[in-house]
Amino acid sequence: MTGAIDFESIKTQKGRLVQTIHETAKWGAKGVWGKEASQTGVCRLALSDLDKCVRDWFVKETSDLGCTIKIDQVGNIFAIYPSKNKGLPTGIGSHLDTQPSGGRYDGILGVLSGLEVLRTLKENNIVPNFPIALVNWTNEEGARFPMSMVASGVWAEKIPLETCLALKSIDDTPKVFGEELSRIGYAGKVPASYQSNPLACHFELHIEQGPVLEQEGKKIGVVVGGQAFEWNMVTVFGRSSHAGTTPMNTRSDALVTASKIILMAIETAERSGGLATIGTLNLEPSSVNVIPNIVKFTLDVRHVEDEALSGIMTEIKSKATHIANTGIGSTFAKPLTVDFHNITTSKAIKFNQNNIDTVKKAALQLFNENEIREIVSGAGHDSCFTSTRVPTSMIFIPSKDGLSHTPEEYSSPEEVENGFQVLLRTVLLYDQAREE
Amino acid sequence: MTGAIDFESIKTQKGRLVQTIHETAKWGAKGVWGKEASQTGVCRLALSDLDKCVRDWFVKETSDLGCTIKIDQVGNIFAIYPSKNKGLPTGIGSHLDTQPSGGRYDGILGVLSGLEVLRTLKENNIVPNFPIALVNWTNEEGARFPMSMVASGVWAEKIPLETCLALKSIDDTPKVFGEELSRIGYAGKVPASYQSNPLACHFELHIEQGPVLEQEGKKIGVVVGGQAFEWNMVTVFGRSSHAGTTPMNTRSDALVTASKIILMAIETAERSGGLATIGTLNLEPSSVNVIPNIVKFTLDVRHVEDEALSGIMTEIKSKATHIANTGIGSTFAKPLTVDFHNITTSKAIKFNQNNIDTVKKAALQLFNENEIREIVSGAGHDSCFTSTRVPTSMIFIPSKDGLSHTPEEYSSPEEVENGFQVLLRTVLLYDQAREE
Repeated sequence: MTGAIDFESIKTQKGRLVQTIHETAKWGAKGVWGKEASQTGVCRLALSDLDKCVRDWFVKETSDLGCTIKIDQVGNIFAIYPSKNKGLPTGIGSHLDTQPSGGRYDGILGVLSGLEVLRTLKENNIVPNFPIALVNWTNEEGARFPMSMVASGVWAEKIPLETCLALKSIDDTPKVFGEELSRIGYAGKVPASYQSNPLACHFELHIEQGPVLEQEGKKIGVVVGGQAFEWNMVTVFGRSSHAGTTPMNTRSDALVTASKIILMAIETAERSGGLATIGTLNLEPSSVNVIPNIVKFTLDVRHVEDEALSGIMTEIKSKATHIANTGIGSTFAKPLTVDFHNITTSKAIKFNQNNIDTVKKAALQLFNENEIREIVSGAGHDSCFTSTRVPTSMIFIPSKDGLSHTPEEYSSPEEVENGFQVLLRTVLLYDQAREE
Repeated sequence: MTGAIDFESIKTQKGRLVQTIHETAKWGAKGVWGKEASQTGVCRLALSDLDKCVRDWFVKETSDLGCTIKIDQVGNIFAIYPSKNKGLPTGIGSHLDTQPSGGRYDGILGVLSGLEVLRTLKENNIVPNFPIALVNWTNEEGARFPMSMVASGVWAEKIPLETCLALKSIDDTPKVFGEELSRIGYAGKVPASYQSNPLACHFELHIEQGPVLEQEGKKIGVVVGGQAFEWNMVTVFGRSSHAGTTPMNTRSDALVTASKIILMAIETAERSGGLATIGTLNLEPSSVNVIPNIVKFTLDVRHVEDEALSGIMTEIKSKATHIANTGIGSTFAKPLTVDFHNITTSKAIKFNQNNIDTVKKAALQLFNENEIREIVSGAGHDSCFTSTRVPTSMIFIPSKDGLSHTPEEYSSPEEVENGFQVLLRTVLLYDQAREE
C-alpha cells in the first residue's frame, strides 16, 4: 500500500463491532443477552474459565483472518496480521478481562475494535506495509490478581516476570497466577519482553471512564498522556475522651481535625487544577460516645504535571500540620499531630507526539475540530506501560455519565463506531507513514 | 442522734479509704499492686469470678459492721446499717464493676467511700436515726453485658427484669446474665424494685470523668443533674466514581459533604453551649481510588437543657440538608442527600433540690464557696435511674486530665478524702434533717 489511502473506498460493516461486543458478553454476562444487552454487566475475571472461553474465541477469529498467534509467558496474546514488508508490528491493544461487576466496554472495546480493523482489512483486501499486532493484555484490571496492568508491565520489563507469575488471586481459596495460566492453556513460551517480542508502537481505543467528553459534547478524545498521582496514608493523632464529660474547648478530636484536613486537601487540589480523593477512612476507638483519637485515611491526589502535583502535596502537608497544631482553641487541649505516609507516586505520562498527531489527523478526517479534544487519561491503562518502551497513544470515546466498572457503563453504538473508524484510520495512516 | 452534729468530734481514719481502693484492686488489677498502684488498671467485668471475689469481700466487710445484707433478683447488694428508728434507708450507692480497661475509681470510689462512712459511724459509735443502705449496683458499666446501668434501671422499674436477666455477654462464648448471676451466687430473692425494696433517697460519690473541676481548681462538684442527649445515625448519599477520571466539579463526594456536615455540627453544638461527637464513621465502597458514595456516622449531641438540645438538632438537620443539596458547585454533579435516623433520645435529668442543698451544705462545712461548684454530669450513672424514683444527687471529685475508663484514671488521695468527707457529712446531715 503506497500513496494516499482512499479511505472513502474502504467498506466497513456498520454495527458489526457493537454486535461482537454484545455477543462476546455471553462469556461473563450477568444478565441475559438480548433486549437490554447494554444494561447488563460482565464479570470476566482474568484467567477464569470465562476468560479462557473468550481467549479461545479470540485466537480462532484472528487465526481465521490469517493472523499468526504468539502467546507470551504471562498469557499476553499477540495476533499478528500479515503484511507486505517485514518489520516490527504496529500494535493495537487492550484487555478482555473485567472487574467483578464490570461493563461491556472497558478494555473489551479496544480489543474488539482492533479485531474489527483486521476484519475490515481482510474484507477490503488491504495488505498493510507492516504487520499489525492485535494484543490482548492479561489481567489489566488487577481485579482477580491484585496488580493492575501487570502483564503489560512485565512486557515493558517494569515488573519482574516472577512477581507476576507468583501473584495470588483474591478467590476464597487463592490461586497462583502462573498455575491458573497453565490451567487455562495460556502459559506461552514467547518471552514476555518488549526486547524479545517487540512492537513498533501501541495504539489503544478505550472509553473515557470520565464525563468530560460527554459534558462538552466531544466525539473523540485524543489522549496525550496520563496524570501524575500520589497516594498517601494520612494519620491524625488526637486524644480519646468521653463524649459526655469533655467540654468542647478541651478536646483533641482527631475526626474534627481530619475533616478540616480533608476539606483543605480537596480545596487545594481543585484550586491548582488537580484532583483529590479520600476513598477510605477508619477511626479508633470507634464508639458512639468516645471522641476518636486516631483517624487514618487515604489521600489520592492527581495532576497532569509532576511539578504541580508536587506543589499541591507540599501545600497540603504544610497546611495539614498547621491545622493539626492550631486547630484547637483552648490551652487545655493537647495539640494534635498528623503524619503522611507515601504509598505510591506515579509520574505523569506523556504519549508520543507523532502517535498523538496520527490520531488527531485520523479524527479530523471524520469530525470537525470542535468535535474532538485533547485529553489526559485519569485512569491507568496498558498503554501507560507500553509508552515507556514504544511510541504510544490512545483514543477515547465518551462514557455515559462518566461511569465505568459497573454494569451501567455505556457508550452508544454511534460512539463505538466513531472510535473504531478513528482507530482504523490511525493504524493505516501510521502504517503508511512508516513506509514513507 | 438529735440536735446539731458535732462533726469535729468524729474521728476518721485518714488514708484508709485510699488503701482500701488499692487493696481491692487486686481483684482485677492488671499490674502488680504496690509501688505504682495508682497507675495500674482494673479489669473487673460484671458477674465475673473477680466480681464474685469483691462482692464476697463487700458482704463480709459490711456484715462485720453489723449490716443486714439483701440481694435482689439482679444481684444488687443492699448492705443495711442499723439505726435508732425504723424507716426507709438513706441510700449510698455506686458500682464495683469496671470497663475491660478500667481504672480504680470509676464506681469503686462510690461504694468504698460508702463503706468508709459505715466504718466511721461504727468506730465513733454513731447510730443514725434511720437505716443507711450501702448499695453495690450490678453491671453499671454495661461492658460485659451491653446495657449500661441495667440493674439500677430494673430497680427503678424502667427496664424489665426479664430483659436484664436475658442479656448476653460479649464473651467469645456468650453467657446469659441470669445464669452468670446464679453461677457466682448472687441471684437474690429480694424483688428488684423500688416499690418492694425502697430507699428514702440516693447519694453517689463519683469521679467527674471530665476535666472541669481540675481546670477550674475546684475541690468538689455538687451535681445538679445529667445532660440531655440524642444519638443519630447520619447517612450521606452521594455518587461513586473514579478518582482519576472524574473532574472535581462533577463529583458528588459523600465524604466531602460528610466532612462539611461534621464541622457544621460541631460548630453548632459548641456555639449553643452543647457537645457534639462523631464517634464512628464508615464509608462505601472504601477503595483508595473510588469516590465514596455512602458515608454513615454517629452523631452524639448533648445539652444541659432539653429545649436547647432540640434546637441544636433542628439547626443541624436543616443545615446538613442545605449542605448536601447545595454543596456542589457544578450543574454536572448530582445533589447529595442526607438522612438522620434517631437511635436514642434521653431527657435532661434534674436532681432533687433538697439533696443538692444537703451536699452543698456538707461541702461548705469543709471548703470555701470558690472551691466548690455546681456541675452537670456528662456521663450516665446509677443515680440517673434512682433519681426517677427517689430524691437523688451526686458528689464529684476531680479526675486527672478528665480521664476515665483507662488505667490512667486518677484522683489524688487528698481528693478521695475530700469526697469521702463530703459524703459522710451529707449522709449525716440528711439523716438529721429526716429526724427533724
